[in-house]
Amino acid sequence: MAKELKELTNRETNYSQWYNDLVVKAGLAESSAVRGCMVIKPYGYAIWEKMHDALDKMFKDTGHVNAYFPLFIPKSFFSKEAHHVEGFAKECAVVTHYRLKNDPYGGGVVVDPDAKLEEELIVRPTSETIIWNTYKNWIQSYRDLPILCNQWANVVRWEMRTRLFLRTAEFLWQEGHTAHETREEAIAEAEKMIHVYADFVENFMGVPVIVGHKSPNERFAGAEDTLTIEALMQDGKALQSGTSHFLGQNFAKAFDVQYTNREGKLEYVWATSWGVSTRLMGALIMAHSDNNGLVLPPKLAPIQVVMIPIYKGAEELATITARLEEMAAELRSRGISVKIDDRDNVRSGFKFAEYELKGVPVRLAMGPRDMAGGTIEVVRRDTLDKESVPQQGLTERVEGLLEQIQQNIYDKAKRFRDSMITPVESYEEFKRVLDEKGGFVLCHWDGTVETEVAIKEETKATIRCIPVDAPEEEGVCIYSGKPSHRRVLFARSY
Amino acid sequence: MAKELKELTNRETNYSQWYNDLVVKAGLAESSAVRGCMVIKPYGYAIWEKMHDALDKMFKDTGHVNAYFPLFIPKSFFSKEAHHVEGFAKECAVVTHYRLKNDPYGGGVVVDPDAKLEEELIVRPTSETIIWNTYKNWIQSYRDLPILCNQWANVVRWEMRTRLFLRTAEFLWQEGHTAHETREEAIAEAEKMIHVYADFVENFMGVPVIVGHKSPNERFAGAEDTLTIEALMQDGKALQSGTSHFLGQNFAKAFDVQYTNREGKLEYVWATSWGVSTRLMGALIMAHSDNNGLVLPPKLAPIQVVMIPIYKGAEELATITARLEEMAAELRSRGISVKIDDRDNVRSGFKFAEYELKGVPVRLAMGPRDMAGGTIEVVRRDTLDKESVPQQGLTERVEGLLEQIQQNIYDKAKRFRDSMITPVESYEEFKRVLDEKGGFVLCHWDGTVETEVAIKEETKATIRCIPVDAPEEEGVCIYSGKPSHRRVLFARSY
Repeated sequence: MAKELKELTNRETNYSQWYNDLVVKAGLAESSAVRGCMVIKPYGYAIWEKMHDALDKMFKDTGHVNAYFPLFIPKSFFSKEAHHVEGFAKECAVVTHYRLKNDPYGGGVVVDPDAKLEEELIVRPTSETIIWNTYKNWIQSYRDLPILCNQWANVVRWEMRTRLFLRTAEFLWQEGHTAHETREEAIAEAEKMIHVYADFVENFMGVPVIVGHKSPNERFAGAEDTLTIEALMQDGKALQSGTSHFLGQNFAKAFDVQYTNREGKLEYVWATSWGVSTRLMGALIMAHSDNNGLVLPPKLAPIQVVMIPIYKGAEELATITARLEEMAAELRSRGISVKIDDRDNVRSGFKFAEYELKGVPVRLAMGPRDMAGGTIEVVRRDTLDKESVPQQGLTERVEGLLEQIQQNIYDKAKRFRDSMITPVESYEEFKRVLDEKGGFVLCHWDGTVETEVAIKEETKATIRCIPVDAPEEEGVCIYSGKPSHRRVLFARSY
Repeated sequence: MAKELKELTNRETNYSQWYNDLVVKAGLAESSAVRGCMVIKPYGYAIWEKMHDALDKMFKDTGHVNAYFPLFIPKSFFSKEAHHVEGFAKECAVVTHYRLKNDPYGGGVVVDPDAKLEEELIVRPTSETIIWNTYKNWIQSYRDLPILCNQWANVVRWEMRTRLFLRTAEFLWQEGHTAHETREEAIAEAEKMIHVYADFVENFMGVPVIVGHKSPNERFAGAEDTLTIEALMQDGKALQSGTSHFLGQNFAKAFDVQYTNREGKLEYVWATSWGVSTRLMGALIMAHSDNNGLVLPPKLAPIQVVMIPIYKGAEELATITARLEEMAAELRSRGISVKIDDRDNVRSGFKFAEYELKGVPVRLAMGPRDMAGGTIEVVRRDTLDKESVPQQGLTERVEGLLEQIQQNIYDKAKRFRDSMITPVESYEEFKRVLDEKGGFVLCHWDGTVETEVAIKEETKATIRCIPVDAPEEEGVCIYSGKPSHRRVLFARSY
């Protein structure tokens, strides 16, 4: 591990390589034999499970239920919503046959040409179409509304350039799909869910986000409005971390989903959809980690506390481990997850480095002198501060420390993020800030797609969002000089 | 609902149609627009979530961790294990292209012929191949073993004749894949996991099972031994409910996974795999339900207790509901899930029928006379017994009742199952029992594939298993008259 740690690329030298090294060496994920598809390894999956559980509870607490819809979508479904097809029915996995057979000429297993599907099936890149085709049968009257369904699923988008967690051909996500009586109710749902996401990302992941509307050009294909949460990574690039869409009546019209309203008249149903994915793992890793490895927020750390005995010989190991077991039992009784690493084939220095790499929030080490003196060494991962503390009251101390670490990680990320929001007044300044400082640039924009596209082509920066709390402020567009009524947030992004 | 209930086919008239009606009308699942793929509806998915959570805890308590492997498997992987390819690389979904495009001739969206994959990808029907290809990189030394991974995933097998939950093209499941130093350890793991399954199916689902070995002919493709749990449905047909495979070194050899053992020598790794799927939902439904609808075991019921106010007018409804809320709060504080149905647009008779259809274990109804007299009406779903009980002590009574129902459901299924195991001594008797009584037939078999296949062709009955607790007993095969040392279990099955 010490050797492997040396091989962790320096964050300041090559951020991108540092990220990839970290994902692989901390045992979070790795590339697979299938182009663009990753293997999520047990330690990475354990973090995703904690994300899943926390989000799932938040969804249920806000009245949602889970369901499961087919992996495959008939090709023709994509053509039913005009914008949707442009956005999603392009780079995707297409199932054309349903059988293999032994090659009669000895070429191994081959596709059976007689088993061609009449209509090709697309592996879902998102499920609006198949779900609204299903909702058609579930909805007759206003009494059947709202429908508040969520699905945990895998989806596939055939990305050409992939990066572990951030952009993979297959990824895991959840997609909420709701159906409502009125426009207002659907808009309120889309807003509620983007705030659920913001709450989760800030309070569990410790990553501050800006909530805003996407510009029309960056909307979800088929949406009337897309809300987003935008986070900032340590390299100054933005990462879209979750989106919630007000879909209007677009999918209801595409799939002919009407209901009898309270006045007895037929009306099209109003829709939302919203999702977060394993991309959040990328945000979590990039927002906090350092050159020693991961820094995990306690609320999502699979191991919150690791205990390491410092010993000479088997007898000392047994004595110290026995005492650590007692302390671990007390910590566990408070719901804290504890691992005791009593391996005798690696040095404790190796263990220290390993748990730093894995981002375990609190490390406790105890040697014979600590045993005798009633003390124990505590190291917190976020600051690497070390202190010797009394064994007495350890549980309360660790509980407090975990809370402090959770808060400190967020505060640190927030200070950095805030320092990286730069208001600019001219296009020159805009470009200089992007190149020299990075981060979010807050500026006036004339509201046209032409300006947005021109700026993107010239600078690679896009409008990340129009913040929901952006105050009205008269100004002129940095690019066109035309009038503008509020500032928007630009950045280069993942 | 009363109307819909009438439409529930009678179980005795047409068992198969009764099952399908029940699945659809109770809101568990329905067919989708994609041939053979189902939509798992919220109520059905809520039961599956409870199964997931209980099993996942059992897996973790036995030292397993979760991970996630790719949905797609390169076609060539299937050819690497000779038996496996025969079993799995046949009826499957084949991805041949990765892009759609707009038809230049106006034919809508079409497959882009320029986006043909060099090697076709198969949507996983099971993941041994991709996982062992991954394990190759994870395993060098005995210190890397055991690997005890599980995956919750969707899989696809292109079935021609499908039935909701029992046999669908796409289904949800978990697949454990473990790697071991020794043959003995792998065999012990396979045995441990089949007993975990038996424990779950008996103690959560309330369905008694027989644990046994599959005959060589019925083994998993690529296994050296397959353990199974076999349950009996109410129509006398068996249902394989879970399997655990000792894979020997077959996959290690196919994917060249060797490790340095404790003596410093290279050796192939030993493997197991084991899985249960949404098929368990079918077993759960078919084992207990009746002509009024589902009968759910309390441990897996999404709603354990439903409360229904019996009232005239809005004021009475409010008063009764307020009292029910108090009682519900106390029940919930004990971890019991309670729903109060205070809808004012349907009659209480409609509600009664609806919750019977949905299999809610306990129904509580309270009217003004109960309010005044300090009583409440309790109906248990398994027996439909009704009694009026004091409101005082209700929580303890309901807790006790839920336990009783859980036990009673199991006992009833066990009595039926036990009555349906018939020892026979001749082939004539064998055929007569199968045709007239059904169920399991316990008889001598000569151990040959020829006999097994002949019996299957003549009677459609297969060897469900060689029970692990089958005593040694000398006898002669009912079919060939050749010597046999123990009885095996035959049945017609799903």
